[in-house]
Amino acid sequence: MKKNLLLIALCCISLCASAGRIITDSIRSQVLGATVRYNVYLPSGFDKSDNRLPFVYLLHGLTDTYTAWDQKGQMREIADELIESGESVPVVVIMPNAGGPDINNTPNGYFNMSGWAYEDFFFNELLPEAERKYRAIGDKAHRAVMGLSMGGGGSVGYSQRHSDMFSSCYAMSPWLISGSGRPGPNGEKTRMFYTMEAVKEHSALTFVDNADDAVKEQLRSVAWFLDCGDDDGLLGETFELYKKMRLAGIKAELRVRNGVHNWEYWRASLRQALPFASRNFDK
Amino acid sequence: MKKNLLLIALCCISLCASAGRIITDSIRSQVLGATVRYNVYLPSGFDKSDNRLPFVYLLHGLTDTYTAWDQKGQMREIADELIESGESVPVVVIMPNAGGPDINNTPNGYFNMSGWAYEDFFFNELLPEAERKYRAIGDKAHRAVMGLSMGGGGSVGYSQRHSDMFSSCYAMSPWLISGSGRPGPNGEKTRMFYTMEAVKEHSALTFVDNADDAVKEQLRSVAWFLDCGDDDGLLGETFELYKKMRLAGIKAELRVRNGVHNWEYWRASLRQALPFASRNFDK
Amino acid sequence: MKKNLLLIALCCISLCASAGRIITDSIRSQVLGATVRYNVYLPSGFDKSDNRLPFVYLLHGLTDTYTAWDQKGQMREIADELIESGESVPVVVIMPNAGGPDINNTPNGYFNMSGWAYEDFFFNELLPEAERKYRAIGDKAHRAVMGLSMGGGGSVGYSQRHSDMFSSCYAMSPWLISGSGRPGPNGEKTRMFYTMEAVKEHSALTFVDNADDAVKEQLRSVAWFLDCGDDDGLLGETFELYKKMRLAGIKAELRVRNGVHNWEYWRASLRQALPFASRNFDK
Amino acid sequence: MKKNLLLIALCCISLCASAGRIITDSIRSQVLGATVRYNVYLPSGFDKSDNRLPFVYLLHGLTDTYTAWDQKGQMREIADELIESGESVPVVVIMPNAGGPDINNTPNGYFNMSGWAYEDFFFNELLPEAERKYRAIGDKAHRAVMGLSMGGGGSVGYSQRHSDMFSSCYAMSPWLISGSGRPGPNGEKTRMFYTMEAVKEHSALTFVDNADDAVKEQLRSVAWFLDCGDDDGLLGETFELYKKMRLAGIKAELRVRNGVHNWEYWRASLRQALPFASRNFDK
Repeated sequence: MKKNLLLIALCCISLCASAGRIITDSIRSQVLGATVRYNVYLPSGFDKSDNRLPFVYLLHGLTDTYTAWDQKGQMREIADELIESGESVPVVVIMPNAGGPDINNTPNGYFNMSGWAYEDFFFNELLPEAERKYRAIGDKAHRAVMGLSMGGGGSVGYSQRHSDMFSSCYAMSPWLISGSGRPGPNGEKTRMFYTMEAVKEHSALTFVDNADDAVKEQLRSVAWFLDCGDDDGLLGETFELYKKMRLAGIKAELRVRNGVHNWEYWRASLRQALPFASRNFDK
Repeated sequence: MKKNLLLIALCCISLCASAGRIITDSIRSQVLGATVRYNVYLPSGFDKSDNRLPFVYLLHGLTDTYTAWDQKGQMREIADELIESGESVPVVVIMPNAGGPDINNTPNGYFNMSGWAYEDFFFNELLPEAERKYRAIGDKAHRAVMGLSMGGGGSVGYSQRHSDMFSSCYAMSPWLISGSGRPGPNGEKTRMFYTMEAVKEHSALTFVDNADDAVKEQLRSVAWFLDCGDDDGLLGETFELYKKMRLAGIKAELRVRNGVHNWEYWRASLRQALPFASRNFDK
Repeated sequence: MKKNLLLIALCCISLCASAGRIITDSIRSQVLGATVRYNVYLPSGFDKSDNRLPFVYLLHGLTDTYTAWDQKGQMREIADELIESGESVPVVVIMPNAGGPDINNTPNGYFNMSGWAYEDFFFNELLPEAERKYRAIGDKAHRAVMGLSMGGGGSVGYSQRHSDMFSSCYAMSPWLISGSGRPGPNGEKTRMFYTMEAVKEHSALTFVDNADDAVKEQLRSVAWFLDCGDDDGLLGETFELYKKMRLAGIKAELRVRNGVHNWEYWRASLRQALPFASRNFDK
Repeated sequence: MKKNLLLIALCCISLCASAGRIITDSIRSQVLGATVRYNVYLPSGFDKSDNRLPFVYLLHGLTDTYTAWDQKGQMREIADELIESGESVPVVVIMPNAGGPDINNTPNGYFNMSGWAYEDFFFNELLPEAERKYRAIGDKAHRAVMGLSMGGGGSVGYSQRHSDMFSSCYAMSPWLISGSGRPGPNGEKTRMFYTMEAVKEHSALTFVDNADDAVKEQLRSVAWFLDCGDDDGLLGETFELYKKMRLAGIKAELRVRNGVHNWEYWRASLRQALPFASRNFDK
C-alpha cells in the first residue's frame, strides 16, 4: 500500500509539472540563400487547443547557436514553471540561429551585414512564417523580444528599428558598442569581422542620440528592461544606454545583480524576463 | 582601439569569474568489492596554496549518477559565483556515485543494504580518502552534507546517525518514507527493491520518534535545513519530519518555494545551501 | 548649476515614485448598529480618470485595527512600487476595521458572532458601498481578498463561503483553528471569547472536509495562496489546510519563507500578494 | 485543550523571534560643544553574556534623525530575523544623529564643516565611547559602516579616509556629489548650506581620482557594496563611483534593484547589508 503511494508520488513527480516541449524547425531563406534552423518552445496544452498565443523571440549570443537556450539555458524548465505558477502567460518562444547552417563559414549576428541581410530575413521571412505555423496572435501587443549578449544587443536593435513590432524588450548583458571589424591574417573577412561591423553600424546608443521627437515617441511604446551583472564587462555600455534613454524621456527598467557574463546569470534573467513580457502583453 | 577594448572586455568576460573546476576520481572499495566514481569540485586557487578547506558532500538522486550535479545542476557555475561574492566560503565539494560502476546491476542508495554496505563504505573508505587527497580540514565543524531526493534523504540519514561528523545538513526534496521493496516479475531483487528496503529500514521519521534525550542533544549539534517545492510529491514527508523535529526541540529551517521535483528547483536550492553550510562552518 | 542639478535630483527623489494615497472613510452599519472605519488606498492617477478598477480587500490581525496595514505594513509604499513597476495592476485597496469603533468594547473578527454579524455587514453593507464610492469594476474577476493572521483566516473563510465573489485569496500566517472561547474571570464574554468562538464555528479545515463535489468545484474557481513563516506557530494549521485542499483537488500555492509572526514577514508577503492578485484578475 | 494549544501558539508567536532591543543614549561632545543622541541596537542575549561583539555604524539621511532606522526602517525586526537565521552574526548597531540636538539650528551631515567638526567627533569621541560602553571587539576586522543617502555618502567618505577602521562599507543610494552651498535669502548660512559645502569638499569621486598606489591599496582592504534603485536620482553618481573604483582596481559590489529613494528600498537593502558586513568580519 505504502509502496503504491510511493510509486504514485514518484509518477506525480515526473508528471505534475505541466511540461511544454521544444521542437526544431528550419526555414529556407530567399534573402540569405540559406536554410536557417530555429527551436520552438510550445507550452503545455498547445496541441489540445487552437488558441492563438503571444510570441517571444529569444536570441542567443555570439559563440552559441539556436540550441543554446535549450541546452545551456534550461529555458523549457524555466518557462514551464513560470507558466504553471501564472507568473508568465502561456507563450510560444522562437529561438532562431543567428547565423546560417554552417557556423564556421557564414556570418553571425542579428543585423544586416554585407551579403547577409539577416535583419531583413528575420522580419520578412522568419517572423511571418513562424507566426503562421505556430498560431501567433501576431500583433505588437502580443510579441516580445529578449536575448543575451549579442542577442541582447539584437533585442535592443530590433525594438529600436521596429518599435511597431514589439510590446517589450528585455536585454540581458547586451553587446551594444563595437569598434571596426579587422580582417583576418590573410585579409579574409571573418565571421567576427562581419559581426563587429554590424554592431558598429547599428549602435543602439547612437540610435538614441539621433532620435527625434517622433522616434522617441515610438520608442516609448515599447517596455524596456536592461539587465547586466556587476562583474560583466558589458555593464558600462548597458548603463550608458539606460542613461541616454532616461534623458530622452524613454522609461526603462534597469537591474544589476551579482554576476558575470555567464549562463548562471541569464537563467535568472529569464525568470524575470518572461513575467516582464507577460505583464506587457495586451496593454 | 575600441576593438581592443572589446577584445579585452570579451576576454575579461570569460576570465573574470574566478573559476573552480570539477575532476573525476574513483576509489577501490574493499567494503563493496567495487570501484566507485566521484566528482570533486576544487575552488579557484586550490592549486596555488596548500590550505586545508571545509568539505561539502553533495548527493545525487535515485535515477542519476555522480555526474548529475555537474551536468544538470550546474554546480560549478553556482559555486564559483557564490564563492566570488563571498556568500559561500571556498569549499571542496565531493559528489559520489550512489551505486557502483554498473548503474544497471548494482544497488543504488546511500544506506547499507543487503550485500552492499554503502554507508560503511562512505564513512570508512570514501570520506577518509577524499579528505586526505583533497586537503580537508577534516572535522565536524568544517564538514557539511546536502543532496536532493534520495540524496536529500541520504543527507538526513547520515546527519542523524553520524551527527558528530557534520556541522550542517541541507535536504532538498528529501525522500524519507518508503514501503517495502517488491521483487521483480521473476522474483529477482532489483535495484529499486534494495533502495526501497533501505529507505524503509532507515526511516528518518522513525529515527526522530525513537530518539532519547541524549540523541536529541546530539541532533541539536547539527544545523538542519529542509527545502521542498509546493508541488513536489515529497512535501508531505518533508513537513512531517520538520514537525517531529520541532516537537523534539531540534531546530530546523524549513522553506517551501514554488516548484516541483526538478533541477530548476534544486539549482535554486544549491544557491541557498552553500551559504547555509558556510554560515555553519566553524561555529 | 550643479546645485540646481542637485535640487532637481532631490525633488525628483520625492516625486518620481508615482504616489498613491490612503484616506480614511467610515460606514454606518444597520447590521451592527455601529459605525465602522476603513482605510482606502487609491492608486496614483485615481482622480484624473473615471476608470473603474479592480478591488483588493486587505484584512488586519487580531490585536490591530484598520490603520495597521498603513502604519505598520507600509502598504502604500509597497503598492506604489509594485504598480509603478507593473508587477501589480492599479488597484483600490479597502482595509476595514475588524471590530467596531471602540476597540475595547466591541467584538473583533471577520465572521458572524453572537450579536455582531460582521460577515453580513461586510458583504451586504461595506463591500457594496465601498465599491460604489470608489469606482470598482465590481465583479468576481476583479476582486481579491488577502490578510494576515486573523485576517488571513478571514480571507480564507470569505473565499470559501463566497467563492463567487473573489478571483483570488492570499492568506498570510492564517489563523484557522480555534478551541472554544472561555469567559473572563467574572463570567463576562470578552472580545477574545467571541473571536475564538467565531473562528471555531467557521473552521476553514472543516469546510474543506465537508465540501461536496459542487462546493469543491466552486472552490476551484478561486486562486489560492497560503504563506506562512517556518517559525510561525500557525504553520501547522496552514499546512493542514494546504494538504486537505490538494487532496480535494483544489489547487493552491504554498510558500514557507524564513520568519515568524511579524510585520517583517507580512510586508514581504504583500509584495507577493498584490502581483498574485493581479495575475488572477480578469482570467 | 485546543484552547490551551492556541494560547501557547499565540504566546510563542510573540516570543519565539529572539528579540533584540533598541535603546537611546547620548554623548556630550567637547569637539562640537553639544550633546548628540544615538540609538543602539543590542542583539538578543546581549545582557546574558559579556562577550565582545562586532559593531555596525548605521547612518541616516539628510532630513532624518537618529530615530529613523528604528521608526521608519524597522531595523530591529530586520536585524532580529537575520541574526536568528544566521544570515547575520550578532552585532551591536550604533545609529548616531548626524546633527546636534536641535535639528533646526545645528549643521547636519557626517563630515567636518565650518564650526562643526562632526567627523572628528565621530572618530575621536563617539566611536570610542560607544565601543567601550557596549562591549565592542573594537578593531577593523569587526567594524562595518553603512547608511542611506547622505548616510550612504557618509559611509563611503568614512571608509575612504579611515580605511583602517572598517572591514566593510555598504552604501545605499549614496549622495556623493554636490555643488556649492548657497546662503539663505538673508545671507544666512543654513543647515543645507553647510551640508552641501561639506559634501562638495569631501567628494568621494575626487578621492578615488586622487588616490595614489598606497591609498588604493588601503582602499582594497575594505569590502565595498554600492546599492541604488534604478529610479533613484542618485544612481548616476553611484555608478560613476563604481566605475572609478573598478578602473582603480578596487573591487566593489554593485546592485541596482527596482526602486526609488525611499524606505521600501532601504529596508530591503538592510537585509543584504547586515549579511554582507557579517561575511566580511574577521577575514
